[in-house]
Amino acid sequence: MTSSQTPHLPGLAELEDREAFLRRHIGPDQQEQAHMLRVLGHDSVDSLLRAVIPQSIRRDDTMRLPPAVGEQQALQELREIARGNHVLRSFIGQGYANAHMPGVIRRNVLENPAWYTAYTPYQPEISQGRLEALLNFQTMIADLTGLDVANASMLDEATAAAEAVTLARRVSEHASDSVFVADDVLPQTLEVLRTRAEPIGLRVQVGAAARAADGEHFAVLLQYPGVDGGVHDLRALIAELRARGTTVIVAADILALAVLTPPGELGADIAVGNTQRFGLPLGCGGPHAAYLAVRDALKRQLPGRLVGASVDAQGNSGLRLALQTREQHIRREKATSNICTAQVLPAVLASMYAVYHGPEGLLRIAQRVHAFTALLADALQAQGWQLRHASYFDTLTVQTGADTEAVHAGSVAAGINLRRAGADCVGITLDETVERGDLLTLLGVFAQARGATAPDARVFEALVGGVQARWPEQLGRRSAYLSHPVFHAHRSETEMLRYLRRLADKDIALDRAMIPLGSCTMKLNATSEMEPIGWPEFAAVHPFAPADQRRGYDRLASDLRQWLQQATGYDAVSLQPNAGSQGEYAGLLAIRAWHRSRGDDARDVCLIPSSAHGTNPASAHMAGMRVVVVACDAGGSVDLDDLRAKARQHAGDLAACMITYPSTHGVFEPRVREICDIVHEHGGQVYVDGANMNAMVGLVSPPQFGADVSHLNLHKTFCIPHGGGGPGVGPVAVRAHLAPFLPAHASGGEGAGAVGAVSAAPLGNASVLPIAWMYMRMMGEHGLRQASAVAMLGANYLARRLQEHFPVLYSGDGGYVAHECIIDLRGLKDSSGITNEDVAKRLIDYGFHAPTMSFPVPGTLMIEPTESESLAELDRFVDAMVAIRGEIARVERGQWPRQDNPLKAAPFTAAVVLGEAWEHAYTREQAAFPVAQLRQHKYWVPVGRVDNVWGDRNLQCACLAPQAETAPPQTLAA
Amino acid sequence: MTSSQTPHLPGLAELEDREAFLRRHIGPDQQEQAHMLRVLGHDSVDSLLRAVIPQSIRRDDTMRLPPAVGEQQALQELREIARGNHVLRSFIGQGYANAHMPGVIRRNVLENPAWYTAYTPYQPEISQGRLEALLNFQTMIADLTGLDVANASMLDEATAAAEAVTLARRVSEHASDSVFVADDVLPQTLEVLRTRAEPIGLRVQVGAAARAADGEHFAVLLQYPGVDGGVHDLRALIAELRARGTTVIVAADILALAVLTPPGELGADIAVGNTQRFGLPLGCGGPHAAYLAVRDALKRQLPGRLVGASVDAQGNSGLRLALQTREQHIRREKATSNICTAQVLPAVLASMYAVYHGPEGLLRIAQRVHAFTALLADALQAQGWQLRHASYFDTLTVQTGADTEAVHAGSVAAGINLRRAGADCVGITLDETVERGDLLTLLGVFAQARGATAPDARVFEALVGGVQARWPEQLGRRSAYLSHPVFHAHRSETEMLRYLRRLADKDIALDRAMIPLGSCTMKLNATSEMEPIGWPEFAAVHPFAPADQRRGYDRLASDLRQWLQQATGYDAVSLQPNAGSQGEYAGLLAIRAWHRSRGDDARDVCLIPSSAHGTNPASAHMAGMRVVVVACDAGGSVDLDDLRAKARQHAGDLAACMITYPSTHGVFEPRVREICDIVHEHGGQVYVDGANMNAMVGLVSPPQFGADVSHLNLHKTFCIPHGGGGPGVGPVAVRAHLAPFLPAHASGGEGAGAVGAVSAAPLGNASVLPIAWMYMRMMGEHGLRQASAVAMLGANYLARRLQEHFPVLYSGDGGYVAHECIIDLRGLKDSSGITNEDVAKRLIDYGFHAPTMSFPVPGTLMIEPTESESLAELDRFVDAMVAIRGEIARVERGQWPRQDNPLKAAPFTAAVVLGEAWEHAYTREQAAFPVAQLRQHKYWVPVGRVDNVWGDRNLQCACLAPQAETAPPQTLAA
Repeated sequence: MTSSQTPHLPGLAELEDREAFLRRHIGPDQQEQAHMLRVLGHDSVDSLLRAVIPQSIRRDDTMRLPPAVGEQQALQELREIARGNHVLRSFIGQGYANAHMPGVIRRNVLENPAWYTAYTPYQPEISQGRLEALLNFQTMIADLTGLDVANASMLDEATAAAEAVTLARRVSEHASDSVFVADDVLPQTLEVLRTRAEPIGLRVQVGAAARAADGEHFAVLLQYPGVDGGVHDLRALIAELRARGTTVIVAADILALAVLTPPGELGADIAVGNTQRFGLPLGCGGPHAAYLAVRDALKRQLPGRLVGASVDAQGNSGLRLALQTREQHIRREKATSNICTAQVLPAVLASMYAVYHGPEGLLRIAQRVHAFTALLADALQAQGWQLRHASYFDTLTVQTGADTEAVHAGSVAAGINLRRAGADCVGITLDETVERGDLLTLLGVFAQARGATAPDARVFEALVGGVQARWPEQLGRRSAYLSHPVFHAHRSETEMLRYLRRLADKDIALDRAMIPLGSCTMKLNATSEMEPIGWPEFAAVHPFAPADQRRGYDRLASDLRQWLQQATGYDAVSLQPNAGSQGEYAGLLAIRAWHRSRGDDARDVCLIPSSAHGTNPASAHMAGMRVVVVACDAGGSVDLDDLRAKARQHAGDLAACMITYPSTHGVFEPRVREICDIVHEHGGQVYVDGANMNAMVGLVSPPQFGADVSHLNLHKTFCIPHGGGGPGVGPVAVRAHLAPFLPAHASGGEGAGAVGAVSAAPLGNASVLPIAWMYMRMMGEHGLRQASAVAMLGANYLARRLQEHFPVLYSGDGGYVAHECIIDLRGLKDSSGITNEDVAKRLIDYGFHAPTMSFPVPGTLMIEPTESESLAELDRFVDAMVAIRGEIARVERGQWPRQDNPLKAAPFTAAVVLGEAWEHAYTREQAAFPVAQLRQHKYWVPVGRVDNVWGDRNLQCACLAPQAETAPPQTLAA
Repeated sequence: MTSSQTPHLPGLAELEDREAFLRRHIGPDQQEQAHMLRVLGHDSVDSLLRAVIPQSIRRDDTMRLPPAVGEQQALQELREIARGNHVLRSFIGQGYANAHMPGVIRRNVLENPAWYTAYTPYQPEISQGRLEALLNFQTMIADLTGLDVANASMLDEATAAAEAVTLARRVSEHASDSVFVADDVLPQTLEVLRTRAEPIGLRVQVGAAARAADGEHFAVLLQYPGVDGGVHDLRALIAELRARGTTVIVAADILALAVLTPPGELGADIAVGNTQRFGLPLGCGGPHAAYLAVRDALKRQLPGRLVGASVDAQGNSGLRLALQTREQHIRREKATSNICTAQVLPAVLASMYAVYHGPEGLLRIAQRVHAFTALLADALQAQGWQLRHASYFDTLTVQTGADTEAVHAGSVAAGINLRRAGADCVGITLDETVERGDLLTLLGVFAQARGATAPDARVFEALVGGVQARWPEQLGRRSAYLSHPVFHAHRSETEMLRYLRRLADKDIALDRAMIPLGSCTMKLNATSEMEPIGWPEFAAVHPFAPADQRRGYDRLASDLRQWLQQATGYDAVSLQPNAGSQGEYAGLLAIRAWHRSRGDDARDVCLIPSSAHGTNPASAHMAGMRVVVVACDAGGSVDLDDLRAKARQHAGDLAACMITYPSTHGVFEPRVREICDIVHEHGGQVYVDGANMNAMVGLVSPPQFGADVSHLNLHKTFCIPHGGGGPGVGPVAVRAHLAPFLPAHASGGEGAGAVGAVSAAPLGNASVLPIAWMYMRMMGEHGLRQASAVAMLGANYLARRLQEHFPVLYSGDGGYVAHECIIDLRGLKDSSGITNEDVAKRLIDYGFHAPTMSFPVPGTLMIEPTESESLAELDRFVDAMVAIRGEIARVERGQWPRQDNPLKAAPFTAAVVLGEAWEHAYTREQAAFPVAQLRQHKYWVPVGRVDNVWGDRNLQCACLAPQAETAPPQTLAA
């Protein structure tokens, strides 16, 4: 380049460059965009957009957003917002405890894009690292709960409990529709349970745990220890309940299980809980990985994601998601749950906490917490305070009577939050971060409330020789846990670091290559978006801290709601749903409640096109709706005639119609207004799935074309990373008439209370919201619109370049796709025997994550490049696909046998291509280096093609017995 | 494991576990240590230590250190110390400017162990990633300075200038011993130059730049722009100087070169400067990468590290350190410099800043800084202030006269530091972080000092249309820079992220495997040690900020000095030297100054054993000493008879003797007291090289056995990571009589002023000191001693296991080594033709970084495991070595030809083992997977064996023309 030829400097706007982030976020630069437009025969992005988006549905207004600012300015503003949160020490408990995340885990997992930019491990071969971490999680949960099988993972403890109840309902032969909930269950669990039970006709009865066997209940939910800290021996009660055919669910504190007899040994069928205190920050309530573990007999009923071992094409062990046939994308409304996104990154973090500490470490942490609690109890009693329970683990309920407010006021003044456990008592929950000074402060607060003298440091002398544990002797845990070598081998930081690196190296995430998954919008997760989630002002806030300590979160949420309203055109937004599925569910609940508010109680039919994603019918089912399927035409669009007929047929009971826009086939259906009108005419509400929102931000507004409600995926469109399969954030956005029916929450939800809580925490996965805030703040109106536009430019560029080699399905009227395209491989199956799966696996050898397979159309691949992929990367992908087409042609021509070619054998591990004998029609080099670039830089897949069927037949969902990998290396050379 | 069988809890000490970090730092746990001890025939570590360390030199006291605390507690204490630094906005300039490090670079380089735990790239095959980054650095410097060749990198601008002067001296035929320094050179540069010039007999003359041609000088040093901001056209002056045979050195601001005619085009021979403002934090002065660039004719005289391209065994391009033959380890006192460690990590960061911003980005940043400076200048003049220069880039000197103190007081009150440029003027240097608000604040401060009205935001309207640049028109840069594709291809964050990952993946660092380098002590760099260096309280402090803003650094340094005194037994420590070589130099200066203080001016002989590391003689030479070599005996120990003879011979002029302890051969010489006595008897001082301090902390005290001075390597013994070849920290520790002769500094050094500054900043690489602080705080007395003990346990375990397969050289009296061992491969050369280099390269195929080759003994490998390597990793290494011995045996037996075997061909790239034809006596699998474990997890080396000689003959030290890698992939399959 040649620079300042003239000493005249550019103007201020150019120098200040407020849209600098836009150029970092968007892959192709101006020149590259121009090139891509030329390929498509357009001279501007606007011209392309006019061709892609039907004029009739183009948004007619602009988003009113603050103008974009640069990364530094945005960080500075967010820091100001963060200061609105006042971080006190929170000993509130109620399911959330402070914890120390080991630095080596924070830096090498939470802050490492190799982990957080990964996608859900649907493609097992390039996901062995995170699958192993999740298998560790499952093993940890199964061990600690004393049950047989655990999944990985649940969204929060409250929804885990609700899922456990519906699981119990599915398996129960009990006639009752009542679930009994002990009155010492976490209040937020009860709140969500009530929300979830009502639409599906379950009754929730609350009472003292001891009374659980008094009535007839298909399920009982107990908390262990109780929210008020009491530790009770539940064995007899559970035995009686199970004898009566009642399914027993125990919600258990994960750390307590290091020292207490686990639920499985108490006789429970199911255990649920949260793993937050295994190193995760409070984060104002999330994201954390909850757990759900069951007896072996129930394992095929587990909701959510389950990792299992199987074998690869060479017979070596290979992990993958097990029993996917029970999930929504297969079973639709008959699925075990609507959960799609899990909490993978938090689950990985929690599992690594156990790997790092090992069983002795967890035991020591639990014992220390308990010893401090015992000391506190003794010292409080010495001051004359009464405690509710003599048996406890880490939580005390102090009978404070008339001193209650004085204690709270004193503790806040001393920088500590305690639990408001009622008008006449105060709850204290200790945790691994508690130091001696905290205890002295606490004792000082209580002493002051009574005018007593606070003890000094000599109080700790009582612990020097060790004290008696304060749980019933028979509840002391005797069984071993975490005995697998993985929980013993990585105890030095060096070994832990290398283990994390080794696992990360097995996987493909966005830090290596494009992940062209249709409808999943794997775009840049910028560092400046990610960094703030580590700020203590966001991370260290307890979700139930006093409201005046959470003003920063209020402001963050309020900004985001407004901006998301602007981005979509809706009138109100709730941020509470902590996954897309939960947003979808909340949206349907809003529709349901609205109908009921108008006396339309009978409206319970939900029309869903046959092409819809499986979460749609599953959520509708959970919302108590009956699903009626609407046909699609050959072009993948809703069949309007069928829609009209079905709407008319259900005019009296039509509740909703759920559609996806742009359609799951990736096109802007021009007749979407008509669809909405038909539904409205027949009394229904229109639900638009927001999965494809990345094609619409700033360009198309769903409520403008007739939608009433949508959920959004902040982890797709708004840059929250996928984290290997979660956390997600699934806000629900509605038009004004539905606003009163957004989720409420005892601790402050967005709704008016007509619909209860859908998540344990009022803001759901609150602590990742800064990511979306940063993105929107740095992009502004023009940037967000540009992102959508370039996403479509990229998709159309890919479609155009690929269509010479593969048929592209479902383009719109002008021959354009929206933000993704579907290529049809069905014809190749006849000509060559090659399937879309073969192509997907072969792409791994070229260094790519496969596109979406067979959704929405079997035998196809759906490709979404997003705006963040550069022209070079798009071209690299096209080159790979073209080369693969060349390989298929060889098979078609008979040069390579149908059953012995690089596509059927893909992916190739290094061990396979280096095998002693090589008796194939293709060479080793053709197998491993089909394009020259791979010689410079090659991702080597750690396993061959994984056999799903074998794994489901031979279900193994905990860590495998140690293999060759951990055995002493065997010398081949000698 | 079985847990709490009894409800009685352990005692407080066990629960609080204050030595928890010790278990994270030390690789082998108690059981593994017991196993290793058993192999060695000992039942305790103490028993082993008694056998390893001669009783006569065992330390007779304990270190008085605060008791160890856990990671959280240590972080909390350090945070308290950090709060002692008051961070104001510093517009002080003087070689340091605020900068924004792009988040993607911070997270994926600075905070990524794959980068910061790497070693110096002596083994090029496993260092291609960082070598490429350094080649980018060299290209960036050469482009921006307009010179032909740049190295990578210098320790700071001041030492770079000093090295440039000695370079000039080496090449100059000029009779003069005078160097002229312009009076607008950075004061710290002048200070260091004076220190460095005096011992080698150079005179420094200071005057106005315009007078440079008045006298006779072999070299002239000019600053561009000057420290007071003036930008002058130096062309005519330089032409005149060069015509007279004077070498012209220009110290240039790297950002200014984006808009100003570069030194090379002005006619300079050499350019030096600092790259700190390319994204690095101020860090109280370091670490930053300085640069030195030269005309082509001078390239073989460059000091420090130089990266160059060469070819590998297959003829593909491969990078490596070039011209190593001019370095100290070959040339000893005739080397171009004593520099060993460079500033690799800062150089990588600065180079990536250029990759990220590209030429347009740098141009825009420079233009914005300048536009704001111009605005400030105009507004100040409008207020009636006089400016010293009408031509400037980013720095103004304001003639403040009697208002000077008022301006300083006002600016500090407004949160801004300005430069104390003299009694009647104030310096202001702007930078890329300056926002409009900063300018308004500044203008307010100046307005207030005059009682004038401060301008409001309308002042920026002047910039809307762009303003004229304020440098002479003929100085506007016209030449292109950074035109190589690497500075254009990674401009989106996604592309940048992938580029960084791709480079990191090419290298072996501690996050993958043991790096068993003798004498380099590659131990754990724990995350909790690393995290604090990112805290703004450490990172954002200007080295010349007012002293009362740097109290946190004072406390940090004072703690560290005390602790290092305790760890070594010395009486005083200076932290100023920013590399081991500089500590060594400072130690010799102290000895020299001490002699002179006693009138012993003639003492200038330095005795150095033949086995010493090359930095020893090189440093002695720089300190103006004459090197006399002392012989070593067959066991590698100093030949006492020869020492005695040489000492006697030089009794009148003996200054010092430099030894290494434990010896460079890795043993505790029992007669070290005798050595010290002999030197002292003849009037000399004993310098003990601290490279092997990891064998001694808490166990052996050099001053107790007679040493007078040592340098330490905090980047070895005290956990500062190697960063791929720096930053290092090389404190110098002395006995009381030498304390007054530690380095001084105008801004506060430790010494009394008898010896000047050796580094640009008073605390050298100040901002990495928290790493060593954390380590010592978390380890405490017992932990540090344990670290040394287990380091020796590991080395002896390796030696014992390896000695069945390879001769182990130089064990001490009892058959033990110290903390490292040397295995002798010379015999194998005869029996098989296999060299130690072949073994080193073959280890790469096994996934290991090679041990130190041929130092101190040609034909050997020196192995230092450190205490951080687990038993599993030690065994993996032994297994690899045993397998390699098996391979050699096959060659010995004739099963594999001497010239065609896996050792000669190592390392194997994937492309090589997958080659179409395979006509070797060994199989592909034997080449790639010599042990079974590698099938599970394999590091694939990116290049074959790199040809050093070819590269030095065909020197190419800037980015290569784009290759296949960036060309469109070529389809092989089609």
